[in-house]
Amino acid sequence: MNPFSRVETLANSCLARANETENSALREHDRRQQSLIKPAGALGKLETIARHLALWQERACPKADQVRLVVFAADHGIVEENVSAYPAGVTAQMVRSFHDGVSAINQLCELLQIQLSVVNLDVGTPSGNCARRNALSDDDLAVAFEKGSQAVLGHEDLICFGEMGIGNTTIASATYHALIGGKGSDWVGPGAGLDADGIERKIHALDLIRSRLSPSPGPKEILTKVGGRDSAAIFAALLEARKNRIPVIVDGFSACAPVALLAAWHRELIDHCLFAHRSAEPAHANVLKWLGVKPLLDLDLRLGEGSGAALAVGLVRAALACFNGMATFQDAGVSEKNMP
Amino acid sequence: MNPFSRVETLANSCLARANETENSALREHDRRQQSLIKPAGALGKLETIARHLALWQERACPKADQVRLVVFAADHGIVEENVSAYPAGVTAQMVRSFHDGVSAINQLCELLQIQLSVVNLDVGTPSGNCARRNALSDDDLAVAFEKGSQAVLGHEDLICFGEMGIGNTTIASATYHALIGGKGSDWVGPGAGLDADGIERKIHALDLIRSRLSPSPGPKEILTKVGGRDSAAIFAALLEARKNRIPVIVDGFSACAPVALLAAWHRELIDHCLFAHRSAEPAHANVLKWLGVKPLLDLDLRLGEGSGAALAVGLVRAALACFNGMATFQDAGVSEKNMP
Repeated sequence: MNPFSRVETLANSCLARANETENSALREHDRRQQSLIKPAGALGKLETIARHLALWQERACPKADQVRLVVFAADHGIVEENVSAYPAGVTAQMVRSFHDGVSAINQLCELLQIQLSVVNLDVGTPSGNCARRNALSDDDLAVAFEKGSQAVLGHEDLICFGEMGIGNTTIASATYHALIGGKGSDWVGPGAGLDADGIERKIHALDLIRSRLSPSPGPKEILTKVGGRDSAAIFAALLEARKNRIPVIVDGFSACAPVALLAAWHRELIDHCLFAHRSAEPAHANVLKWLGVKPLLDLDLRLGEGSGAALAVGLVRAALACFNGMATFQDAGVSEKNMP
Repeated sequence: MNPFSRVETLANSCLARANETENSALREHDRRQQSLIKPAGALGKLETIARHLALWQERACPKADQVRLVVFAADHGIVEENVSAYPAGVTAQMVRSFHDGVSAINQLCELLQIQLSVVNLDVGTPSGNCARRNALSDDDLAVAFEKGSQAVLGHEDLICFGEMGIGNTTIASATYHALIGGKGSDWVGPGAGLDADGIERKIHALDLIRSRLSPSPGPKEILTKVGGRDSAAIFAALLEARKNRIPVIVDGFSACAPVALLAAWHRELIDHCLFAHRSAEPAHANVLKWLGVKPLLDLDLRLGEGSGAALAVGLVRAALACFNGMATFQDAGVSEKNMP
């Protein structure tokens, strides 16, 4: 069976409602926003965030009570090319630390009352080394799509997607290189802390990967030949969230790769996404520019695990607390502007 | 009595411990930071924030349990020049809305568990119109310094200063114009929503204010001639916090004016400050550049009330949750880097 049939069905059901840029809930939202006791627009991006949630949730007063963050963990055969500062076994060790509650993302999720799910995508069984052979079989893809899809339960007010996987910045760089073009070196950075020699090996790996792809590869070819399981799972999860009209917060450099694949397929398929932050990984700024989006935060983060997305949940909660809790000019007896 | 004697005494006690850039708590902090299960530096500015608190609190594991946000409210005679989009009475109305718990800052403080204090600096009794006469008498200054100083209780882990006052962006612009130079128009923006004619009036007001000042006015002259009570109170509060080694989060365009005055006096006097955000008020970027600081957030906020500072408290709490809650490589059995 074609492993892409699941994501194609999802995409079609999303596109049946594409280009909806307003609804009655949003109109009510905008009316209330204008009436709140502050100068119009004075809360800047907090207002944009609240509006995004109103549009996608179809609620004039949006909610962020049920927020989940899913970390997709996978191993990558590309580590055979010696492209990571850490040994491959760290992926499994970090998955254990997520379950033990001792990693950064655990602390952020506890602080921000975010439900954390970790999806183990066959950690310990790396994808094929995409510098030499295809990354994922049809079966691998089908399983990753299914796990990604199932990671969205459907009742979330907001969902965040992050990743953990030694070697996955190389996979993300190769994805951008294939989709957007340029030289391999345009898309490569230190990842979790590579030195200059390591970066050279990473650039060489990107050249090898690119040479195995057709001149203008589409998302399907890239997912098959480059992988990885985490990218495929997030690809499906993004679609599942959109079908359920659940707004998404996308994390950083690696988590953006499946977003870029989806945008290349049909740009409307990522309309429900907010972008948490600009990663310290240098090429991320160009990815965000290519996507035509502005991130909410710029804190030099380069951890992954969904850490930037978790921080952005704090901003969403702040945006909704203001929107839902403030009085209107009329309620509060505050004078509106002097001038027309 | 010289109204400046209180702040001079405060400044001297701060400067007696100036230029302390390390202590034993900080060394212990740095050791722990290096041992946490993440690539070194991967949490970017969250690591910088945690380190800033460790230095100032002299605690290896810093805290942000007792966090207070003080909104200083004052009225400004400069509104006679028709430089605000809102009538002067809105200051008093907003103070009431703070007490009623219905403004933006109430929602943010409730969400983020920040204790909110509102200091009413004779709202309803505007400072002198500084385009025509001195803003503050010696008595006005002495009272504002005292109230600012008393707003810091001394046991806070972290304190934020914000402001509310119709007309106070003009006062802030005039302060920057006097301190930093350039043309009046370099420092003027729409504030709470001025139209083009209003901005012209604001530029004209700045020219009048500047013409009443000496060629290179210092902080004392500016506080006396330009004001306002809120700026004077924050000036003293910043010193009181520094004396007590309490790290401060500074809010946006108007709240930065007393910070700039203090920096012009002795740059070390603002070393305990973190800068919450870059305001949408266009000249704020130049103020931050002149101060040599980078803000944590850039969300197009232009509300005041300490709203940006409150959001930054969320980042501080996230920084400390990670720092204090994560396991070390050794604890978690996670492998460290492959490479030297």
